[in-house]
Amino acid sequence: MDSEIKIEELKKLVRDFCEARDWDSFHTPKDLAIGLVTEGSELLEIFRFVKESDEAMVIQEKREAIADELADSLFFILRFAGRFGFDLSDSLAGKLEKNVKRYPPKR
Amino acid sequence: MDSEIKIEELKKLVRDFCEARDWDSFHTPKDLAIGLVTEGSELLEIFRFVKESDEAMVIQEKREAIADELADSLFFILRFAGRFGFDLSDSLAGKLEKNVKRYPPKR
Amino acid sequence: MDSEIKIEELKKLVRDFCEARDWDSFHTPKDLAIGLVTEGSELLEIFRFVKESDEAMVIQEKREAIADELADSLFFILRFAGRFGFDLSDSLAGKLEKNVKRYPPKR
Amino acid sequence: MDSEIKIEELKKLVRDFCEARDWDSFHTPKDLAIGLVTEGSELLEIFRFVKESDEAMVIQEKREAIADELADSLFFILRFAGRFGFDLSDSLAGKLEKNVKRYPPKR
Repeated sequence: MDSEIKIEELKKLVRDFCEARDWDSFHTPKDLAIGLVTEGSELLEIFRFVKESDEAMVIQEKREAIADELADSLFFILRFAGRFGFDLSDSLAGKLEKNVKRYPPKR
Repeated sequence: MDSEIKIEELKKLVRDFCEARDWDSFHTPKDLAIGLVTEGSELLEIFRFVKESDEAMVIQEKREAIADELADSLFFILRFAGRFGFDLSDSLAGKLEKNVKRYPPKR
Repeated sequence: MDSEIKIEELKKLVRDFCEARDWDSFHTPKDLAIGLVTEGSELLEIFRFVKESDEAMVIQEKREAIADELADSLFFILRFAGRFGFDLSDSLAGKLEKNVKRYPPKR
Repeated sequence: MDSEIKIEELKKLVRDFCEARDWDSFHTPKDLAIGLVTEGSELLEIFRFVKESDEAMVIQEKREAIADELADSLFFILRFAGRFGFDLSDSLAGKLEKNVKRYPPKR
C-alpha cells in the first residue's frame, strides 16, 4: 500500500524482478524511455475519443485496465531511476520548488 | 530521498501543489494521461538518434534534463493515482506477480 | 500506389470514410492528435527492446504490422489536416526549407 | 499543394534532404519511429489542458505551430516508408477496406 511503501522499496522490487530475468542488456536508457512512452500511450488510448462528460464513467468501468497501465508506466520510471542512479523524490521536490515561482499559488 | 519517502507522501506533495493552484478542473483523466505521454516523450527525445554505444555518455552529460523529465512523468502518474484513487504499490506488486508466470526467472 | 496518388486524394479517401460513419463529433483536434501519438506508439513498440543489430530482421519479419501502424498514423495526420484546413505538402516543403539553414548539406 | 503533389514526390523530397546530410546511419527504424512519436507528442502538447470548448480557438491561434508539428510527423512517416520500401497509399487503402467491416457505415 502506498501509505506504507517507500520509493526505494518499489525500486528494489523492480530491480530484483529484472535482474532475476537477466534483462540488463535490454534495459538501455533509450529502451526504458520507449517503455515509458508506449505504456503511457496505452493509458491514453483508454481515453481516446472519450468526451469530457464521459471520462468519469470510463474511470469507473475500466479501473483494472487503468491500474495496469499506471503500474506499467511506473515500472519503467522506477527501473530507469534505479538503474542509472536518479533519486525520484529529490527530483520531484526540486521540480515543484522551481514551479512555485512559475505558477504562483492562487490560494 | 527515495529511501525515506513513502509513495503516499509524494502523492500528497503533488495533490497539495495542484490544489493550491485550483488545477482540478484541468486535471481530467484524459489530460493527465496526455501529461504522462508528453513528458515521457521529452525523456525519449533526449535519446533520439543516439547510438547504443553513446547512451551511457548521454546519461552522464544530461543528468539534470533526464532527472527533470523523470520527475515530470512521475508527477502525472502520482496526480492521476491520487486524484482517482489508485494504489500504485498494490497495482505494481500485482502486475509483477502476474508477470512471474509470463516471464519465468532465469536465475 | 504512392507514385500515382496525390495527397489530396488520400485526404478525400479518409474524409469520405469518416463522414460515412458520422465521426465528426469524435474527431476533435485533441483526439486526432491522441490518435496520431497512440498509433505512432504502436509502431514504436514493435522495436522496443530490439537491438540495433536486429532491427533489419524485424523490418523483414513484421512488414504487415509495420505497414498497418504506418497507415494508422498517416490516417490521423490526413484527417487532422483535411478537417482543419492544413496543406501538408506546403507545410513540409516550408519546414525543409527552414531546415536547410539549420542543417547545411554535407554533400 | 496537396492537390498537385503525389505521395512519391514527397517521399523523394524527404529522401533527397536526408541523403544530402548523410543521415542514413541515424535513421534506423527504431529512431524513425521515435521521431514520429516525439513529433506527434509535440502536436498533442498544443492541446494539453485545453477544454473541448476551447479547441477551435487553439486551432485558429496556433496554426503555424500546428502546421509545423504535422509536417514533422509526416516527415518521419515518409522517411520510414521511403527508406524501408512501404507503399503508404496501398497500406492505407487496404486498412480502410478492412475497417469497412469493423465499422459499417451509418449513412
